[in-house]
Amino acid sequence: MPNHIQASKYEAINFNEKLSLFHDQWQPRIIAALNNYHFKLVKIEGDFIWHEHAESDEAFIVLSGNLRIDFEDGHVDIRAGEMFVVPKGVPHKPVTETEVEILLIEPQGIPNTGDLETGERTATNDIWI
Amino acid sequence: MPNHIQASKYEAINFNEKLSLFHDQWQPRIIAALNNYHFKLVKIEGDFIWHEHAESDEAFIVLSGNLRIDFEDGHVDIRAGEMFVVPKGVPHKPVTETEVEILLIEPQGIPNTGDLETGERTATNDIWI
Repeated sequence: MPNHIQASKYEAINFNEKLSLFHDQWQPRIIAALNNYHFKLVKIEGDFIWHEHAESDEAFIVLSGNLRIDFEDGHVDIRAGEMFVVPKGVPHKPVTETEVEILLIEPQGIPNTGDLETGERTATNDIWI
Repeated sequence: MPNHIQASKYEAINFNEKLSLFHDQWQPRIIAALNNYHFKLVKIEGDFIWHEHAESDEAFIVLSGNLRIDFEDGHVDIRAGEMFVVPKGVPHKPVTETEVEILLIEPQGIPNTGDLETGERTATNDIWI
């Protein structure tokens, strides 16, 4: 590169590139921090468990696939190019028929299984890619 | 609809549908809240002004087009399907050649022109669509 052309010192975060780096499901990976919030990519397929997050809302942006989130009084369908915010304290259960790739935004340190005791569905919570 | 089929009580937020509702540039529209954070859609084209946000990081997710953000010591190119977080206190200047559609995430009440005094480039900050 001619040295009068300045290289970009900064790199954007590419969702597809990051998604290609892992294949396990239900294991969120952190890709960015915004103050004390984390942006996390996760691949999920099938039924999760009912849970809630007492201290925080949770934002879901669907990057590929179709995500359904069940609530006690209904559900929401979220497709690629759509988002939804689950309010804090609201029991919910993500459900998918095939694999869905999601960008989650929530405060750092929120367990994926919410206020349940740690169990087999609880993911390690601090893995950056 | 047969009444044994339960309608979804909840609706996802579709980015393209929301983007079709406005055409003015540099005027962010709020589409969702996550605790005290806002998700905002904005269409920009051309050069913005140098500014900084002393109190908060600012997340940019590009939905269409190519966004460049200049810094004092370099720049970042952000394309559709990519994101970048500008750290708090860092002077930056968004630049585009053609229209870019962006999803911004930051705490509510942050002026688009940062710590500058309100001027002609300062947008109204609380418009929901």
